[in-house]
Amino acid sequence: MTNKNYQQLVEKLSEISYLNGVMSTLGWDQEVVMPMGASEARAQQISALAGVIHERTTDLRLGDCLAALETEDLDGFNALQICNIREARRKYDLETKISKKLVKEMAELSSQGHTVWVAARQDNKFSDFAPLLKRFIKLKKEWAQCVFPDMEQYDANIDNFERGTTMAEITPIFERLKMELIPLIQSIQDRQYQPDSSFLQGTFPVGKQEALARKISKDIGFRFDCGRMDVSVHPFCGGSHPTDVRITTRYKDSDFIESLYAVIHETGHGLYEQGRMLEERDLPASESLTMGIHESQSLFWERMIAQSKNFCVHYFETIQATFPDNLQGATADSLYRAINTCKPDFIRVEADELTYPLHIILRYEIEKGLFDDSIAVDDLPEVWNDMMMKYLGIKPPTDTLGVLQDSHWSSGAFGYFPSYTLGAIYACQFYKTMTNELPDVENKIETGNFAPIKTWLNEKIHRQGSLYTPQDLVHRITGESLNPDYFIDYLKRKYSAIYQL
Amino acid sequence: MTNKNYQQLVEKLSEISYLNGVMSTLGWDQEVVMPMGASEARAQQISALAGVIHERTTDLRLGDCLAALETEDLDGFNALQICNIREARRKYDLETKISKKLVKEMAELSSQGHTVWVAARQDNKFSDFAPLLKRFIKLKKEWAQCVFPDMEQYDANIDNFERGTTMAEITPIFERLKMELIPLIQSIQDRQYQPDSSFLQGTFPVGKQEALARKISKDIGFRFDCGRMDVSVHPFCGGSHPTDVRITTRYKDSDFIESLYAVIHETGHGLYEQGRMLEERDLPASESLTMGIHESQSLFWERMIAQSKNFCVHYFETIQATFPDNLQGATADSLYRAINTCKPDFIRVEADELTYPLHIILRYEIEKGLFDDSIAVDDLPEVWNDMMMKYLGIKPPTDTLGVLQDSHWSSGAFGYFPSYTLGAIYACQFYKTMTNELPDVENKIETGNFAPIKTWLNEKIHRQGSLYTPQDLVHRITGESLNPDYFIDYLKRKYSAIYQL
Repeated sequence: MTNKNYQQLVEKLSEISYLNGVMSTLGWDQEVVMPMGASEARAQQISALAGVIHERTTDLRLGDCLAALETEDLDGFNALQICNIREARRKYDLETKISKKLVKEMAELSSQGHTVWVAARQDNKFSDFAPLLKRFIKLKKEWAQCVFPDMEQYDANIDNFERGTTMAEITPIFERLKMELIPLIQSIQDRQYQPDSSFLQGTFPVGKQEALARKISKDIGFRFDCGRMDVSVHPFCGGSHPTDVRITTRYKDSDFIESLYAVIHETGHGLYEQGRMLEERDLPASESLTMGIHESQSLFWERMIAQSKNFCVHYFETIQATFPDNLQGATADSLYRAINTCKPDFIRVEADELTYPLHIILRYEIEKGLFDDSIAVDDLPEVWNDMMMKYLGIKPPTDTLGVLQDSHWSSGAFGYFPSYTLGAIYACQFYKTMTNELPDVENKIETGNFAPIKTWLNEKIHRQGSLYTPQDLVHRITGESLNPDYFIDYLKRKYSAIYQL
Repeated sequence: MTNKNYQQLVEKLSEISYLNGVMSTLGWDQEVVMPMGASEARAQQISALAGVIHERTTDLRLGDCLAALETEDLDGFNALQICNIREARRKYDLETKISKKLVKEMAELSSQGHTVWVAARQDNKFSDFAPLLKRFIKLKKEWAQCVFPDMEQYDANIDNFERGTTMAEITPIFERLKMELIPLIQSIQDRQYQPDSSFLQGTFPVGKQEALARKISKDIGFRFDCGRMDVSVHPFCGGSHPTDVRITTRYKDSDFIESLYAVIHETGHGLYEQGRMLEERDLPASESLTMGIHESQSLFWERMIAQSKNFCVHYFETIQATFPDNLQGATADSLYRAINTCKPDFIRVEADELTYPLHIILRYEIEKGLFDDSIAVDDLPEVWNDMMMKYLGIKPPTDTLGVLQDSHWSSGAFGYFPSYTLGAIYACQFYKTMTNELPDVENKIETGNFAPIKTWLNEKIHRQGSLYTPQDLVHRITGESLNPDYFIDYLKRKYSAIYQL
């Protein structure tokens, strides 16, 4: 490739990628190792670096480069190169199509937002949060108008996280989920039975939890020579590069399942990052696709693999040997049942896989309503509680346990929530295809032979980077569009068996 | 302060300071937590950030700002502001007075240098290193010509680390040291006696070493809410800000003294950084002065305090309780003697405080000779070994244990070595003044009352930032110029007593 403009583009994009890697390292450092007293200095460092990155991503010469390439004949370019140009254009437009005034307003609101939200949540006072929320919706509508003027404003916000995905696609899928899952959850409630999980209570030394989590993360393929595992307040997957992927978890000595499954979840994200293509690693083509596809990878390992019966069979002895006092009377089967209980509750992040989609659908419908003005911000607590009642049969006693529970809106992240459940549906559909393509997946899991599974995901998803839209990718892999049938079928069969419906 | 030019200068200098803090975090991360596989990506990230910092530090608008301020009447400016302008000018000139070609040549040679040096040292083959060394000396002479055209070339290199300090000051001091220390070491050798240190051999669990080191670091004043202590291959003090100071050490389970005293040494550096003035924290005026003054702080705690008898008395019981099996038969006095043995050996970094200056003087005289062409690179192994014989009475059996042992020359750091011993002399002179100003320092140490000592150093040195030259600072604190008498006197009295001379 001797095209001058393309060479210049690659140089500029690589520099941005390196600087983003630096920013990512700062973020990890802040969450994991930074001394408490350094927070003010760190904020200034991050702001200075953000300024540099903004300068680079909005550099007029980057725009000129792109404009020149777009007038050229790209016949000699390969798919990765064309993808780099397309992705760079998308990002450049996202950065430059909005006025400095709007950027500044959003940044300021976002930095206030967290503090206001924390206080309102603490005081259980939605009315303290409402004015900020109103301003943010207004700004995000303006933002949508600027960056994707041809789209519905909420679609534009979704597109920011889940490109190419619109309400037209999501709404029918979510309607089907509601139709199928609400009665299923209801019948579990009616059953008035819960599997025994008493052996998951007790004391589980953190050191042993950590060793177990590290072993399982390694078993399923996380490369510790190109990654780390540490402790942070909220589990996350960060790091600066495919060769530097950092997952975190947190430990409570009263519960090892939460931490272990957080590690498996973050390992799923981590395998996506570590599994990126070997070429173009510092260019957009190699980057992970969307939030939903990323979530499909974490949920693939957390739910499809690690919440399966076969996984429990494989690891039961190891887990029992790790915590012999606690799991004396348990079996692989009772472990499987205990980690797959379903119980409607108020908090999304603690929800089980069956009730989780309804938490998401509720938020999706509210965001949709806020953007088409069919729901008013001031009515949100009531709307929220009514929906909770309708979908999960429970009513939050406080807004802290209801409409104020999530941080997303305080930073203006509208359109993000659907990705969680789209990820779960993708995961199930991918899993289904994998079982058709790989012989005897269940046996592989039961014998701890995870390598073929990881390799399949590497090839089908991780190495595809940003080459395709999520729609194209799912079609290439599974031969059909995103189809919630597999997810519904999986949930119905699994939970009907556990709850003997 | 409403001066526009000064405001602009402050903005630019602060941004550079924040970005340097980011760079420093990357460096710490690389040495302490980065996964092995990430080294290539990290090099690219560092290089991208270095490019940005270089762009900022050589920004013509920064130069314009300075030039404008230098024509103004600075009557309304306070000492800190004037210092910021002066320091900014110095740094700007250092960055901009050299051609891009020279910058590039030095950077390239430096990055090759390490690899070439490692291989040559491994192969014990000085001739493999000699060509690179010759090129580096040539470049550093050129560099000196550009940045400080009025100085001797070696003085310019010293000034880079120890500003205001020249051969004219150093040479007579080093001559005195030679005159006094060589016979002292010789008489210790002749004495054919060594204090018993057998109780320092054995097994010392790393966990216990770590807890002990952390306790002592905290006792003498290191703030762990604004700092950390971790493990790295070579101990260092890093971090991104006075509120984020990170010291490291390394552990061997066969030796707790090495690690403990490395922690105390790095704590001394760390206290300097944590103790910087509260104003102007992101501006040059608050920054630490020179390498020599920094080293005076680490050596102050390591030698003047922690190698003293009183310190051994204070901590003996704690240390004995930490390693009861090993230190059963020891006493505070035998511990003091055991950690203060003197024995000429080949390696500088392992040398005791009495032989250390001669390792430095040897290097200083060689560098001086290389820069005034009285010593040829090809003769270095022989020159080195002859000097070792003359100064310490031993001859390195290999160049790996001789002329090839230090990494400094491989990165072009000529003029750095003197700072180590200047630091030791400063430390002793400061200590002497402190004992005149603070009542009963020895008793304070013996009772673990370190706070007044730390406060004295905070006020006299740490909070003075870069306001004065080292020459002015030592005069302000001690009422006289740098005076090796205190150092010589200290060494003579201490080692005469231990070795009963």
